[in-house]
Formats: sequence, C-alpha cells, structure tokens
Amino acid sequence: MATLTSAARGVYPIAPTPFHPDGRIDESSLDRLADFYTGCGATGVTVLGQLGEAPKLDHDESVAIASRMVSRLRIPVVVGVSAPGFAPMRTLARAVMDAGAAGVMIAPPNTLRTDDQIASYYHQASQAIGADVPFVIQDYPLTFSVVMAPAVIRRIVQENASCVMLKHEDWPGLEKISTLRGFERDGSMRHISILCGNGGLFLDFEMERGADGANTGYAFPDMLVDVVRLQVEGRRDDAHALFDAHLPLLRYEQQPGVGLAVRKYILMRRGLIASDAQRQPAAALSNRAREEVDYLLSRVARHDARARLASA
Amino acid sequence: MATLTSAARGVYPIAPTPFHPDGRIDESSLDRLADFYTGCGATGVTVLGQLGEAPKLDHDESVAIASRMVSRLRIPVVVGVSAPGFAPMRTLARAVMDAGAAGVMIAPPNTLRTDDQIASYYHQASQAIGADVPFVIQDYPLTFSVVMAPAVIRRIVQENASCVMLKHEDWPGLEKISTLRGFERDGSMRHISILCGNGGLFLDFEMERGADGANTGYAFPDMLVDVVRLQVEGRRDDAHALFDAHLPLLRYEQQPGVGLAVRKYILMRRGLIASDAQRQPAAALSNRAREEVDYLLSRVARHDARARLASA
Amino acid sequence: MATLTSAARGVYPIAPTPFHPDGRIDESSLDRLADFYTGCGATGVTVLGQLGEAPKLDHDESVAIASRMVSRLRIPVVVGVSAPGFAPMRTLARAVMDAGAAGVMIAPPNTLRTDDQIASYYHQASQAIGADVPFVIQDYPLTFSVVMAPAVIRRIVQENASCVMLKHEDWPGLEKISTLRGFERDGSMRHISILCGNGGLFLDFEMERGADGANTGYAFPDMLVDVVRLQVEGRRDDAHALFDAHLPLLRYEQQPGVGLAVRKYILMRRGLIASDAQRQPAAALSNRAREEVDYLLSRVARHDARARLASA
Amino acid sequence: MATLTSAARGVYPIAPTPFHPDGRIDESSLDRLADFYTGCGATGVTVLGQLGEAPKLDHDESVAIASRMVSRLRIPVVVGVSAPGFAPMRTLARAVMDAGAAGVMIAPPNTLRTDDQIASYYHQASQAIGADVPFVIQDYPLTFSVVMAPAVIRRIVQENASCVMLKHEDWPGLEKISTLRGFERDGSMRHISILCGNGGLFLDFEMERGADGANTGYAFPDMLVDVVRLQVEGRRDDAHALFDAHLPLLRYEQQPGVGLAVRKYILMRRGLIASDAQRQPAAALSNRAREEVDYLLSRVARHDARARLASA
Repeated sequence: MATLTSAARGVYPIAPTPFHPDGRIDESSLDRLADFYTGCGATGVTVLGQLGEAPKLDHDESVAIASRMVSRLRIPVVVGVSAPGFAPMRTLARAVMDAGAAGVMIAPPNTLRTDDQIASYYHQASQAIGADVPFVIQDYPLTFSVVMAPAVIRRIVQENASCVMLKHEDWPGLEKISTLRGFERDGSMRHISILCGNGGLFLDFEMERGADGANTGYAFPDMLVDVVRLQVEGRRDDAHALFDAHLPLLRYEQQPGVGLAVRKYILMRRGLIASDAQRQPAAALSNRAREEVDYLLSRVARHDARARLASA
Repeated sequence: MATLTSAARGVYPIAPTPFHPDGRIDESSLDRLADFYTGCGATGVTVLGQLGEAPKLDHDESVAIASRMVSRLRIPVVVGVSAPGFAPMRTLARAVMDAGAAGVMIAPPNTLRTDDQIASYYHQASQAIGADVPFVIQDYPLTFSVVMAPAVIRRIVQENASCVMLKHEDWPGLEKISTLRGFERDGSMRHISILCGNGGLFLDFEMERGADGANTGYAFPDMLVDVVRLQVEGRRDDAHALFDAHLPLLRYEQQPGVGLAVRKYILMRRGLIASDAQRQPAAALSNRAREEVDYLLSRVARHDARARLASA
Repeated sequence: MATLTSAARGVYPIAPTPFHPDGRIDESSLDRLADFYTGCGATGVTVLGQLGEAPKLDHDESVAIASRMVSRLRIPVVVGVSAPGFAPMRTLARAVMDAGAAGVMIAPPNTLRTDDQIASYYHQASQAIGADVPFVIQDYPLTFSVVMAPAVIRRIVQENASCVMLKHEDWPGLEKISTLRGFERDGSMRHISILCGNGGLFLDFEMERGADGANTGYAFPDMLVDVVRLQVEGRRDDAHALFDAHLPLLRYEQQPGVGLAVRKYILMRRGLIASDAQRQPAAALSNRAREEVDYLLSRVARHDARARLASA
Repeated sequence: MATLTSAARGVYPIAPTPFHPDGRIDESSLDRLADFYTGCGATGVTVLGQLGEAPKLDHDESVAIASRMVSRLRIPVVVGVSAPGFAPMRTLARAVMDAGAAGVMIAPPNTLRTDDQIASYYHQASQAIGADVPFVIQDYPLTFSVVMAPAVIRRIVQENASCVMLKHEDWPGLEKISTLRGFERDGSMRHISILCGNGGLFLDFEMERGADGANTGYAFPDMLVDVVRLQVEGRRDDAHALFDAHLPLLRYEQQPGVGLAVRKYILMRRGLIASDAQRQPAAALSNRAREEVDYLLSRVARHDARARLASA
C-alpha cells in the first residue's frame, strides 16, 4: 500500500467527483477517471479536495469515493479531510487511511490569522488524526483567506514529522518556492515535496523555481504531465510552448466558482465523465460560456491533438 | 413530540456539551443540565450550537447528544446543523428530526456577501433538509462575518415557510428588531419568533424592542428567565435591576473565544457539569481569569442568591 | 511642549470632533471639551481617532483641530495619523508635531495578515514619519481585522525606539496585558505604556492586569479617572462598584457604528458639545434609542451624581 | 475640456506614477507616458488608481500629477479619488475637476457588505463630490473585498445620474457583463460605459460580451488597443491570436502585489519610464523574476514586434 512521502513528484491530479444528473455519485465515471489518470502518467491522485465538492458529500459518501479510488489505482491516493473540527477530521482520516489512502490533505479554517494560530492549528490537526498519518498543507490564500508566511510553513514542517508535502497555491507564489527551497539549502527546514495547484496558472515557472510537480485539477492533466517532464528534462522552450498553447483555456478554467463547471464540462467533452452535473450550491455554465469553452478547445487543438477529440 | 413554531417564546438556553477531562462526552452532566433547564423555567433548549462545540463532534456523537436531550426533555429541542455543505447538513438534520428534535438552527457560511447569496443559501438549505423541517436563522455577524440586512431576513422568511425563528445576535441589533417587527406590522413579513443571543448583552432592551425571549448560553439561564418574565409583566425597572446585577459577569462571559471556558467554569461551580473540560482547539482559562470570575460571582451574589452557591 | 513617553499613565480621553448641524467644525465646543478634560483629571488627550471621525476630515481640518487642542491644553495631545499610505501619514504627522503634538497614533490597514507584514508595516511607518516621533500602536482587531500576537507587539517595540504606547483594545484582551507585562519582567521587551480602549468595557480588570490607564471615549471620562485612581490606590471593591454602576450605559455606548451617536448625544446632554451632529456616513440615533440612553442615564444617576445633570 | 460620458469606449490605460529612485515624482517620465498613450491610440487615461500608487501620494502630489496629465493630453483623464472619508474625497475631486479632469473613479471601502450599504455609499459619495462630477464605479472584489451584485450596480446607476462608467474587474465577470447589458435591453438600467480591468486577463471575451473596451495597466496598452479594435471589427480569431500571444506575460503581470513591479519593469524596458522605483510599501522584483519577465518578453516578441524592442 502506497504511503505519501516527501519524495513525491510528478502530477497528482485533483479528481472531481462525478455525479449523475440526479445528484447520485457516478461510480463508473469515477472508475474511468481513475484509469485515465493512470494512463496519462499521473504519479498520484488527490480526491475530496475543494473542487472534488468534498463539503457536499456526507461522511459515508466520502469514504466510499476514497475507497473506490484506492482500490482502482496503484498510485498514491491523497484524501482531503479538511473539516470544521478535529473530531470529524479524525474520523474521516482514520477511515480513509484504513481503506488504503497514502495520506491526507488539510486546509486551514479561514478564521486563522497570526503565525502562531496557523502553526498551532496544524500541530493540533496532526495530533488529532495521528502522528503516523502523512499530511499535505494546502496553502491557498485566495480561497481560504489564510496567509502563511514561508517561516510558518517551515515551522509546521519542523514541528510535525508527518508533514510531507505542500500543495502550493499562494498567489503570487514563485518567490515562496524559492524561499522554501532556500530554507532546505541552509538547513533550517527538511525537504518536503512541493506540488503546485492554483489551476496550474504558473506551473511553467514553478517547476523552474524548484517545485516537484503539479497538484491541480486542470482538465488536461496529460498536458501537466508533459510540462513537468519537459521541465525536468531541461527543455524549457518546449515546456513553455506547450503550456502557452493551453494557457487561454487554463486561465478560463481557473476562474473562482465557475471554474469547476468549466472543468466538468471539458471532462465530459473528453468522454471522461458522463455528466457535468454538480451538487448544490453550484455555479452553472451559461450557453454562452459553453460556446466560449468550445472555442478555446478548438484553439488549443491547433497545437495539441488531445484537445481535438474534446472539441469534435 | 414538540415542533418549533413561530409562536416560540421565553428562554431557550444554548447547552454546552459537557466533556470528561479525557474528552469523552459526559452524559450524566448532560442529563443534569437538561433537568436544570426544565427546572429553571426554560421553554426550550438549543444543542450543538457554536458554544456547544458542535464542530468538534463527529456525526454519531452529534446525533447521540441531540437524542439524549430530546428523550430527557419535554420542551422543544432545537439542534444546530450548520455544516460546510448541504449533504452533511441534511444527513444530520434528518437524523435529529427522526430522533424527535423540534427544529434545526442554520448559521451562514462566512463566504456569503451579497443579499442574493444569503437568501439563496437559506433557500437551498431549506430544500436540502426538507421543507417540512422548521429552521432558525442564526444572524451573528461578529462570528460568521455575514451581514444580513433586515430586508434579507424578510426575504428568507417569505421564501421559506419552514423558517420560524430568528436567533438574533447582530451587534448592534436593537434597531433590527424594531425594523423586523415593523415589517410584520406593515404586512410585508409574516410573524416569526425572535429570540436573542449574543450572550444576552442587550437582553434588557431587546425585550422592550419586541423580542420574544432569549436564546443564549449565559451560565445563569434562570436570570434570563426572570428578566424575560419581568419585561413581559411590564416591570421594567425590576428587569433592569436584575439584569444590571449580572451584567459585569455576563460581559466577562461574552468574550469571544475564552467565553466558553468562562461559561463552563461557572456551570461547574454551580454543580451542573462535572468538569469544565473542552475539546481542542480551546481557549483555556488562566488562574488569574478564574480568580476574576470568582470575584464577579461574589459580587453578583450580593444581589442574586443563585450566584451565592456558585461562589461558595 | 509635552512629549509622549512610555511613562504615560492615567486617562487619555479620545476626543470626538464636534460639528455644527451644517457639518462645519464647532470650535467653541472643541474648546469646552478641552477644558472639561483638564478639569476632570485627564492626563492627556487623543484627537483624530476613529471616533474623532478622522477619515471625514480633510488635511487642513485635521491640522486645525490638532493645533487648537494643543494650544488649549497643557497635557500631552496624541494625534491619530492613520492613513491609507505613508505619504499622507507623514505629511499629517509632521504638521501636527510642528504644531506641538506629543505623539501620534497609528492603526494598521486591514489588509495585514502575517506577523511579518504587521511588524514591517510599523517599521516602515515609523521611518516615514521620522524616528523622532513618538507613536502609539492601536491594537483593535474588532475594527481593523488585524490580529497582533503579543510577540508581534514585542517585536514592534524592540524594533522601533519611538514606539512608546499601546492603545490596547483587543477583545478578549486581559491575558494579552499579562503576557506583555511578563515580557517586560523577563527582560525580552522594554517597558511601554498600556492604555486601554475598547470603550472601557474591561477597564476594571485591565488595571489589575497591569494597564497604566484608559484611552477611550466613554462619555464620562471623569468616571474613568476615578476608576483608574481607585485601582491605583488598591481600592478594588470601590473601583468595581463605581465601574459597575456605569457598565449598563458604557456597554450601550460601546456598540459598533451607533456608539459614536450615543457618545455625542450624552456629551450634548452633559452640555459639553452644542450638537450631536456627525458628518456622513453616520449611524443615526432613533428616538427610541435616545429614550433608552435617557433611561440608562437616569439609572446611572442613582449612583453617580455626575450623570444626574446629564439626565435632568 | 473633455467630460466623461457613458459613451466612452476604447482603451483607458491605468497610468502608473513614475518615481525617481529617491522617491520624488518623475515628471518627464510622466510626460513620456502621456505622449505614448496618445500615440498608441488610447481614448482616455486613468491616473491615481490602485496601481498608480495613489495611497502613497499626499494631496498636493495627487493634484500635481492629475493636472500635469490633463494639460498634456487631449483625451479624457479620469482621476482616482478613493479615500477613507468623504471630506478628503471631495477636496481631491474638486481640485482635479477644476484642473480639467473628465471625471473621477471611486472604489468602495472594504468594510461594505450588504447591498444597501454599497448603494448608500455611492450615493453619499456622489453627493459629497457634487452631482455634476461624472464618476466611475470600480468593481474589484479581489482587491477591495466588496461584492457588488449586478442589481446593486443597476441601483447605483439609476440613483445617480453622474454615474457613467463601470470599471469592470469582478472575477469571474463575464456573466456580469451579459447581465448588465441585459438590464439595458430590458429597460431597467440606462446605458453605461463598461471598460474592463483585472489586468486585462479576460479582455478577449469581455469585448464579445458587450464591454466597450479596457481600463487596465498592462504594460502593452498598444496591444489592448489592437484587441479592442479587432473585436469591434468582428475579427475574432485575429483578436484572440494577438491576445493569446501576450497572455503568458499578461498573466505574469497580473499577480497581486508584485504585479506593479513587473509592470514598471517592463515600462522601463520599453523606455517609457526612467526607473521602475516604487514608494514603500512595495513588493520588489527579484533577479530571478526579472529574468522570467525577460524570457516572457522574448517569447511575446516572436508574435509582436513591439515586444522586441523591450526585450532587446
């Protein structure tokens, strides 16, 4: 059974939760997604993140989704266990770890303000779920309104041996990666894996700054895999050229709120999920917006054949 | 089985959740609290509110507490079901209504901003839990950062037949009560019950503005019962005199964060709960603070014999 | 000319800015206020704070008010110079220091989040206004949404020799005073003056925790002076008895937004300002609210003769 | 003298404020910018916006900058007059209108929450500056934390005849444009000009949704002019192709905080300003970041000759 470690690298797509139009979980689409992730070179998968509509699932559904993904995949599955309190967080974390998850991801509650409050929160969370459970810090100020200075992240890493990864999605965030890698070089922080989220909007340069890969839900994880590989191989221009071809669409998908609707629509167009249905509350996609996405898909298709099928 | 209606009045104490020092739920203290509430004239009880440490309980614990209170009490039990998403909210609401709860209380997520967002949220919540489940709006901007204009509350009431009560804890909030009662008089809003929270800090005048009672966790609900009764009887000076005698302590208890520690400490001093333990994260009470509470108890005791026992 | 130092103690009332009903500044009321503050035992005065309606004044008006107070008073005058940027802050600070102010008060912009951001802001502000200008940190999270951990305040004090006072109005805040005084005892922070704001809501205990006095605008600064004196003399019960007699009114005045209207109304009732007019935007006082204030004044008057005149 | 009207269209660049390395305003760079804007086809210019470092200027400097731009340009100059209160806002608005400004731009204070609060604020602001002064609503939730529903914008437009333009930078914001244009079609709102900000990140589609142009500070306003023109001419593919070539750089420049440093650096590279100095507080550009911008400039240059000079 895979365990998440600080050596993780590559692309961990954030999986959406596919629903039938009536709101039930669509398990065969979930399987199809799992197979697709493996096929396109993902090195892990994260389920039940913000864009996995985690807050719209009850406990049993959450465990069922995580378990299904774990049993279908041979790569590590990270499970979002963010919760308003430590009791439900522990209950979920224990259940999914028992089911074979490789680790969990924890976002901070948006009431945290001071450095101390943030560091204390992660320490208490780690104790609540168990010091043996590898966890990922989700650093996403745009959504969570919690601003973590690099020194706070270092403190969390140093105070909690089970902290193995940063889901980096501060914005702007390039200097943060450089600063954290500098902490590692000067010996003040042990190494952790840094995978980048924020829709992938800066993945091109994040890799150059020292990130280990991507951890985001852009509807073409295959492109993310290629960009990460090209950067690792030192093919900077090729990486940027591929990235730039997707950027107009990627930017469109990265809009707060409506972004998930865009993502599910594209995944549906790609034949990966049967329906782009979301549970309430959900921002719907207007016909005009669908047309815009179609147009962007057709433009991406000029450079990347994978988009051709989707826009057919 | 009691059902919550817009005719509710009197005092609905917000029950804390008593824990053993090791973090387990203390059921006999819960029973003692239930009996105490009945004995002191409460007309209902609210469990699993913010100060009931609801986010620190997992689903099964939440249902167990609500069920125990329902089975022990003959007065309506309202259950807080606020959740980050509608699926866990519905699951909990259904479970506690099946167990005999009279209604549920719903706080808004702190991401809501516009009038439309707030009204839509309550409509979707009502549909999620079922249009047959009576619900209470919790209007507490200080904690939830959501500001509900009176017109928004009116809109929620008019759009959802199952909205029967406002837990009023806006601050300042006196004009809001007057405005809402004005809406009822001008026929633009049907009558709802308004019970006041915010620690009871303005209960003296809130009753005069048209509130129906109190819905807060001050450690002397017996005093709240008396103030509400005195105001209903038109004995304004007597109501204020009793209220003012408690105000120094009440103000101390109403501090954000540490307030719950104060409350549990007093309830422990009163012999109503066996321990003032809280689950993490919790603001602890320093020895100095305990001494301050003791001092305030001794001062209240000069005017109100009920505080004498507690400070003995 | 008085200079603000870390030895400051006693009561620095926050002066409101009196306006004529047509919005012009009422200079003779300003003079009357100045004389009253001196007469009642204030040891300093703060002008152009949040409740001095500072943001509603333009630069020339601000300088005029500060200059008039300085020339009328023989006690230190602190001037609020908070501004959206350092250029206008410096311009105002320089102008009022030239006019004889004893120091300035600086509130943090509500965009600050991390410890570093807060400490950097105060360092840059201090450099902008000049390292020779004594300044006061205004620590009021309820209004400014900036949470300063005690260690951050220590850092500001240690990094800026010109930081001489803390306007303490965190809530809850008693432990913060104890912690800061502990820093002084353990030698990690030099001594600063701590004067308490937040409407005076916890002044009774703040003095016992080590505060040096009050820095708030409650409409009976004479009571604040007496409470501070009684506490300094060790007459705890007398201090609390006097404080408690005012608490119902003080609590009413401390409401966000409408509080200033209450304060100006009482000062008008006391004959200290000619009109309770505010500039826009302003929360008005309803007739009902005025009646409530009158009632509270009459109740205070039973214990404190000074309120008798006001309620006459 | 130009007056801003609801018929405004085209590109109004947001001008940065050029400083010498020692912090003084660089007037000759300001002149060069003005000439460049005219030369590249801008139809107006906005000064003293957020990215014009307006809060870092004192009153006299603000007036001087606005006056200089007005006297140099024959196209309308809009001046940002956002202020913490109406008195300084009025003083500045009056001064710049006297100097020949075409209108003013007003951002909401970040304390506004409810629909009523927002609408009232703009009505009071309009009355404060004078009902004869044309004004622009700045709708930028990402920076100001104020969320304006389309119905609120409609209300501001309908209640204030002097409201002539929306600086549209909500995110996501495409549907908002469609909704507002729908209000115009259904007769519930009079026509206003909609110019788009947010760094231009969605300008390609915003034009298709009904926007009249751009009002943002991207360092290639000449590209914005071309994209707007191409869209007006119905050359969709050409517009997107040009836009997409700039998007990697545009995205990089649109980062919060550090974005202004990027912008000034590029403008310096283009020879339009002598120095990329900012006043404090400022996010600096690391050497690594400069190299990234250089790389992006070289990539843009493959498609757009104008970037060639800059990257030379």
